[in-house]
Amino acid sequence: MRYLDKINGPADLRGLKITQLNALAAEMRDFLVRSVSKTGGHLASNLGVVEIAIALHFCLNSPMDKIVWDVGHQCYPHKILTGRRDKFETLRQLDGLSGFIKSDESPHDAFDVGHSSTSLSVAHGMAVSRDLLGQNHKVVAVVGDGAITSGLALEGMNNIGRSPADLLVVLNDNNMSISENVGALSGYLDGIRTSPSYIGAKRGVQSFLEGVPAIGKLAEKTIHNTKTKLKYLLQTGILFEELGFKYYGPIDGHNLAQVIEVLKNIQQVGGPVLLHVVTQKGKGYAPAERESARFHGVEPFDVKTGKPLNAAKKTTFTDNFGKKMVEIGMQDERVVAITAAMPAGTGLTGFAKGFPKRFFDVAIAEGHAVTFAASMAKSGLRPVVAIYSTFLQRAYDQVIHDVCIQNLPVVFALDRAGIVPGDGETHQGIFDISYLSHMPNMTVLAPRNGAELSAMMDFAIELNAPVAIRYPKDADSELYADALATLRFGEWEILEKGENVAIIALGAMVDKGAKVAQRLGATLINPRFANNLKDDQIEELANYTHIFTMEENVLQGGFGQYFATRLKVLGVTAPKVYHFAITGGFPPQGTRQEIFNKLELDGDSMYKKCLEIVQGG
Amino acid sequence: MRYLDKINGPADLRGLKITQLNALAAEMRDFLVRSVSKTGGHLASNLGVVEIAIALHFCLNSPMDKIVWDVGHQCYPHKILTGRRDKFETLRQLDGLSGFIKSDESPHDAFDVGHSSTSLSVAHGMAVSRDLLGQNHKVVAVVGDGAITSGLALEGMNNIGRSPADLLVVLNDNNMSISENVGALSGYLDGIRTSPSYIGAKRGVQSFLEGVPAIGKLAEKTIHNTKTKLKYLLQTGILFEELGFKYYGPIDGHNLAQVIEVLKNIQQVGGPVLLHVVTQKGKGYAPAERESARFHGVEPFDVKTGKPLNAAKKTTFTDNFGKKMVEIGMQDERVVAITAAMPAGTGLTGFAKGFPKRFFDVAIAEGHAVTFAASMAKSGLRPVVAIYSTFLQRAYDQVIHDVCIQNLPVVFALDRAGIVPGDGETHQGIFDISYLSHMPNMTVLAPRNGAELSAMMDFAIELNAPVAIRYPKDADSELYADALATLRFGEWEILEKGENVAIIALGAMVDKGAKVAQRLGATLINPRFANNLKDDQIEELANYTHIFTMEENVLQGGFGQYFATRLKVLGVTAPKVYHFAITGGFPPQGTRQEIFNKLELDGDSMYKKCLEIVQGG
Repeated sequence: MRYLDKINGPADLRGLKITQLNALAAEMRDFLVRSVSKTGGHLASNLGVVEIAIALHFCLNSPMDKIVWDVGHQCYPHKILTGRRDKFETLRQLDGLSGFIKSDESPHDAFDVGHSSTSLSVAHGMAVSRDLLGQNHKVVAVVGDGAITSGLALEGMNNIGRSPADLLVVLNDNNMSISENVGALSGYLDGIRTSPSYIGAKRGVQSFLEGVPAIGKLAEKTIHNTKTKLKYLLQTGILFEELGFKYYGPIDGHNLAQVIEVLKNIQQVGGPVLLHVVTQKGKGYAPAERESARFHGVEPFDVKTGKPLNAAKKTTFTDNFGKKMVEIGMQDERVVAITAAMPAGTGLTGFAKGFPKRFFDVAIAEGHAVTFAASMAKSGLRPVVAIYSTFLQRAYDQVIHDVCIQNLPVVFALDRAGIVPGDGETHQGIFDISYLSHMPNMTVLAPRNGAELSAMMDFAIELNAPVAIRYPKDADSELYADALATLRFGEWEILEKGENVAIIALGAMVDKGAKVAQRLGATLINPRFANNLKDDQIEELANYTHIFTMEENVLQGGFGQYFATRLKVLGVTAPKVYHFAITGGFPPQGTRQEIFNKLELDGDSMYKKCLEIVQGG
Repeated sequence: MRYLDKINGPADLRGLKITQLNALAAEMRDFLVRSVSKTGGHLASNLGVVEIAIALHFCLNSPMDKIVWDVGHQCYPHKILTGRRDKFETLRQLDGLSGFIKSDESPHDAFDVGHSSTSLSVAHGMAVSRDLLGQNHKVVAVVGDGAITSGLALEGMNNIGRSPADLLVVLNDNNMSISENVGALSGYLDGIRTSPSYIGAKRGVQSFLEGVPAIGKLAEKTIHNTKTKLKYLLQTGILFEELGFKYYGPIDGHNLAQVIEVLKNIQQVGGPVLLHVVTQKGKGYAPAERESARFHGVEPFDVKTGKPLNAAKKTTFTDNFGKKMVEIGMQDERVVAITAAMPAGTGLTGFAKGFPKRFFDVAIAEGHAVTFAASMAKSGLRPVVAIYSTFLQRAYDQVIHDVCIQNLPVVFALDRAGIVPGDGETHQGIFDISYLSHMPNMTVLAPRNGAELSAMMDFAIELNAPVAIRYPKDADSELYADALATLRFGEWEILEKGENVAIIALGAMVDKGAKVAQRLGATLINPRFANNLKDDQIEELANYTHIFTMEENVLQGGFGQYFATRLKVLGVTAPKVYHFAITGGFPPQGTRQEIFNKLELDGDSMYKKCLEIVQGG
């Protein structure tokens, strides 16, 4: 029997010896690889934190003690150790196990998360609350070297560093974000990792941690003073020490005995403590060690080769965007591309290769990405900022304050807009029309297929004003593929001519709207513009009895409300108007189709609803 | 004749000697104090940067060279030196001189700003663009030690530190945000400022800058290597050096000769350079030196005494909030208050004094403030996050991702909501209903007076879900002061009973709505809730012919659209609906009344429009 099968909660770890825990780690890796090979999911980061998860649950007493996993996609080992091993076959599926930390799922999941870099602020809130409420559990944040470059994490660090509250930050340094890490902090950690002292410690030639095992025996202060002197000689961790942390490390995050020993000792150190742990993304599974970026998030794959099982992938909106960016890059030297740690996810790999000097990966720093882009636009360039819809939420103020006020020509390419499969509540791209379309000077576009996305990119680059183009994580549409009307400012495209009923289906909703329109004999309009539509077209709708709007966005502040207000302002009040949009809270994980069905935004449900309304008068 | 009168642009500085420039600095301080004493405006920070502004314009060639002033409210000396001296009597007034950097106003204003901490990202964008476009001007960012604690600035620093582009950051270290600075970075700078080397340098006993004057003569690399060795001995600037900057300083920012000499030499250093300049807020005007927080932004005052001219101030919404927080603090130990560097501005001074352990000023770090609060709410506390409407834009994602997804009981107190006087485009609080009311689980409230604000605070603390209360920078209302209906979830308050016409006036719009309702004989409703209103009340409006909504928010995504959609969903389609809301872009600076007039949202304009619509049928 595997050790793994006996672990139904952290308590089951505590009877095991180091050799047994090491065997468990190997079993967990095997389990992770097999499991994720079937369901898809995050792999490389999870393989990297197996020992950290074991060591933390071995040394702490969760859920009394709080372990805050940053981002959450490296939570699989934690979930395996906290009684959820059996649910991995439902990972990221409708009603299945979440791929992120979710407090509804287990008391061991201390605070919901999906976006990066919240763990320091969350842990600080927990530590301060604990002290105010007179409790005395431990609080540990586990944050990656990629996540720590975000402003939110840095703000958290600035606040923790001056706080008296006891709090341990485990910096999981794998030298990678999803893709390669960038920025000065990353360079700083590089420096530590490649320092003779760390390399020496790893080789066992010289124990860098000489002082640490003794912590238990000596007064904390003495040790810390000794360490303070040492650190200047060793030149490691100064940055964190200057920010108020007691810095320990770097230690090898795959040496379980060492991690456990240090964690035990370090618990006796008060105030903010940072433990620098070096790990390898993909550790223990050769294909993931070799290609950790590809194995960050994967589709089902063959365990032996690491190759994807469904090789024949359909062309996606993302693919079209990436291809178009290379074309635009060649045509227009002013075009630069900016991403926040998502070069592959946003489809910018080709542009990055073709135009390395005009490509900027700013790390997980969406706010900076936007302000940086605004400044380049002001300087005469044409920046394209490619950020997922849910992550651009991090830069809402910068879009208003730095782009829109000066009406600067920044193009926002919002991938993963609308319903996002698999990732669940935290990653839904269902707010962007609402948060962008109320900004003065901003034009929001949504293409129905890749060809239209391409036309919109040309249009956006030439507009000389802020433009956002939002498109889903989905395959390109094959409907009305040959008939793409020329794109002009504020003009929509009519795809079906009918009577009485008009369906205005935005972006990827065109496909669903088409089914409804064809069955109802309705006019089908692809509005293209989520705001700033020309009035004369809207006025032409006066002869209809019913108007239905369809969008992959929440109802409040979305396209439907914009459209209804325009109808009202223009006096087009004869038709009845009904909005299909997302209501009822944050949609869960599942396939896109499953979630549309659940929300009754699939073609059949919408057809029934339309029919009911039309027949009702 | 004063030197001041001869300076109509930076070029006029260059003929002057140091003694003359020092005289000019004194004249500028005198001018600033007299001018701001009449108009009101930002004073203390501007008095602190007189020498920095002179030195920068003396050494650089603006507008060819770009000077990026962070936040912008310390731009007055810069404006004096760039031909705008004569416009200071119109400061912060309608059609007058902006109190911030505004590129429409002068080519010397390189990039519009009003919110803090954008300068590093902006300067980096300019430096990168310059290099891509083959230009060769200089780029300098001037950022305060308060502004640098924001995540955006830290993201900028992380990106600059690894970039080869030449860029100078002048860190203006006055040891203050608007109020006292907090956080680890601030502590770090404290350490440098109080180090023997800096104190020695100031006293002239030992020239800390020994190496610097020689830069011009020696190869840059040699100097930098020497400095690298020195820095470890002096223990200053290590943090910035580790982040990839070449650090110089600290130097005395009021020693003009020194600042100019260092600036001249430092221009020959390549890559990212940080010059640490220590200044005093309020420098040269005794009342502002003593009370720099009060003189950050001031109303007109008596130059001799520093006392405000209009002593008899009306009670404001902010005052009411501050008073209520002290009451709540006494009644409920779970209540904690969080502000982002605005303890006085948000009215939290009393709470901070009364409950220092439950008060958290997190520095200019709105994202952290919200996630930190969410964590405290999850831990059983009842956090109240007091942040201006325009600054909470910085935490849009944290409100969704960390508060709303888990439906956590965080109360947001949004001061300066709606039209903001004086500060202009960058500070308008006109988006909050749009950016908050589409978030699932969020309830948005707007009080019509202080008593209602107080009732809403009680309500919000008890709701056990996210609540935002938004109120303007204005005096408390005296209308309907004695009649405040009990506050219940989703219920509105009827203030006037009329026929045919119903006016739904949100928050501070009640006063204006009352004028219209009384003249029209209309029903006047104070909805209290900007979303989540109960259906049965809305259904009662079916007998009306006209419904007018009024709000201090943009039209798109605001209260009016929410209300219109509810009417439609509930089948209340008989009345004609018209929305009074903000359209036409970013409102300019002026008094609140002037801006309402301009937007035709004053009582008279709205009455005329209502009459026109009602009479039109």
